[in-house]
Amino acid sequence: MKIVVDAMGGDLAPEQIVLGAADAVKADNSLEIVLVGAKERIEDVIKANGCSADGLSVVDAADVITNDDSPTMAIKTKKESSLVKAFDILMHDEDAAAMVSAGSTGAVLAGSVMKVRRIKGVSRPALAPILPTLKEHGVVLCDCGANVDCKPLYLMHFAIMASGYAQLMFGIQNPRVGLLNNGVEEHKGNEQTKQAFELLSGSDAINFVGNCEARDILSGNFDVVVADGFNGNIALKSAEGTAEAMLKLIKDGVYSGGLKSKIGALMLKGVFADVKHKMDYNSNGGACFLGVGKVIVKSHGASKRKSICASILQAQELAQKDICKKISEDISKYTETADAVAGSDQ
Amino acid sequence: MKIVVDAMGGDLAPEQIVLGAADAVKADNSLEIVLVGAKERIEDVIKANGCSADGLSVVDAADVITNDDSPTMAIKTKKESSLVKAFDILMHDEDAAAMVSAGSTGAVLAGSVMKVRRIKGVSRPALAPILPTLKEHGVVLCDCGANVDCKPLYLMHFAIMASGYAQLMFGIQNPRVGLLNNGVEEHKGNEQTKQAFELLSGSDAINFVGNCEARDILSGNFDVVVADGFNGNIALKSAEGTAEAMLKLIKDGVYSGGLKSKIGALMLKGVFADVKHKMDYNSNGGACFLGVGKVIVKSHGASKRKSICASILQAQELAQKDICKKISEDISKYTETADAVAGSDQ
Repeated sequence: MKIVVDAMGGDLAPEQIVLGAADAVKADNSLEIVLVGAKERIEDVIKANGCSADGLSVVDAADVITNDDSPTMAIKTKKESSLVKAFDILMHDEDAAAMVSAGSTGAVLAGSVMKVRRIKGVSRPALAPILPTLKEHGVVLCDCGANVDCKPLYLMHFAIMASGYAQLMFGIQNPRVGLLNNGVEEHKGNEQTKQAFELLSGSDAINFVGNCEARDILSGNFDVVVADGFNGNIALKSAEGTAEAMLKLIKDGVYSGGLKSKIGALMLKGVFADVKHKMDYNSNGGACFLGVGKVIVKSHGASKRKSICASILQAQELAQKDICKKISEDISKYTETADAVAGSDQ
Repeated sequence: MKIVVDAMGGDLAPEQIVLGAADAVKADNSLEIVLVGAKERIEDVIKANGCSADGLSVVDAADVITNDDSPTMAIKTKKESSLVKAFDILMHDEDAAAMVSAGSTGAVLAGSVMKVRRIKGVSRPALAPILPTLKEHGVVLCDCGANVDCKPLYLMHFAIMASGYAQLMFGIQNPRVGLLNNGVEEHKGNEQTKQAFELLSGSDAINFVGNCEARDILSGNFDVVVADGFNGNIALKSAEGTAEAMLKLIKDGVYSGGLKSKIGALMLKGVFADVKHKMDYNSNGGACFLGVGKVIVKSHGASKRKSICASILQAQELAQKDICKKISEDISKYTETADAVAGSDQ
């Protein structure tokens, strides 16, 4: 399977991206990875690190899209950038099944919509990271920033797409869907979530289990949590910031706590490493952009080789299991039902 | 100073409420606390715990408002409830300066608006807890759930009120105000936050320093973060849920990690207790309901005596420093300026 990788996107590009790609082909030698970016620099990384070039090919790209670029404008005008060229290969090479980038989220989303196009029937594609939970598998949070102003029908589509994604990723039959809201009671919410609640709870297309307070996202009581991109982003970043703050407070406490604390911390090193790893959802793969015609995985901007490798293997799995076909079928099925008609009026 | 306490509100009422009130009068014997609730049960708690009754008086109330009651309806119809009677005393006893309740948030807010009334010029009163930060003092998050659908002008008023609150609580001159948003760049946000950004950044009434991502609420880079009640609630609860999940993961790791982990955890007991205490913002007082004519402090539903005592002392401090007068003056001053005219159009 061929996967296109934007070798220049991300804070640690191209080095960590290239090393992650090399790790991925080592893990699965059926993979063919096309690295798009500054050819010489990429080849230098391969050589300097003694990586095998088997399974890796390089396509030169002279330009880079950064976080300072306007996403839509950059996709339109930076035709020689690694990201735009990666999209072009993804769309014109029939064998290319997926694309991975750790670059500007806005540009990856804009490029996905402009170059890859929406799946028929999907109102808005959405960004869906998988967060850790206290139970055996994670939870899909959808949307997380692609759509800041949403109609209730968009949230219904997010629920259908994320349910399909959760089925494939977690191997479960009937993912429990929650609606991110400011209380668990039915009547809770703002205008948007009240309308969305009605639509979600009235549909057989998903297994809607009710409102999810932000406090319960990580509880493991939900497999999917839907939200508009603004609220999903707030919930995600608040969780990230809190996890970071707590680790910092513990670290500061250990440093100022004298020898006893330092020894205690040494003895708990393994526990802290496990917790940090579990909370750092970025290291386990990327966020999938659901609802466009090919598999797009957005890896975190600070991704290191391990997380790039995980994102590539995740993209491969999603392409193998044909997430795009599943979404297309599920959305079609929903659109043909009566409740979709009600939803589209809202 | 006389403070009215709803002795029946909260999961651990009346016992922990009464004990907290007794602790408060012990800490400051100038306090007079009126405990409103089931007289016999309250007096039993005082007797059974050997508390001094000095500074404590009891007003009997036969009924209780619970979380299952509809807030507005309960305030209107449950006239014999401890909360409604507490509001009545607050409004009819001239010496009563503040009210503290750990009961239903919705009912406390409804009662505050219906019984205490808004301060003139305030578009919407707002709930403002103080969250911990990595720096020397906390951050006021306003609004946190009182107003789920907000106009930009409401957020401007939240900024003014919370700035006044931060000045009094933290003893700072010029609180740095951030707008909760999905990115730091000026152009980021949904329709609401884009308009609010314009209004906040164009006003001299506050020290607006820009957008605040949810990741940075606890950073200490802001003294006030304004949000609509829906998003503020999402951010707050996501932070709470993450802090709980992390502590649970650490605990589970220690238990399953054998003797070494258990000894390590024992040696770090003090550090963990400090972190837990710092993250548990509820134990340091309650959330102030800003913008109504008297001081209202909403203590967490699970409040124990320590946190009730802290809420009472906080209410006393706010009444002594006359937060209501400050808000009234600051809002008037703003309303007289030209930028308020622009804001009121939005």
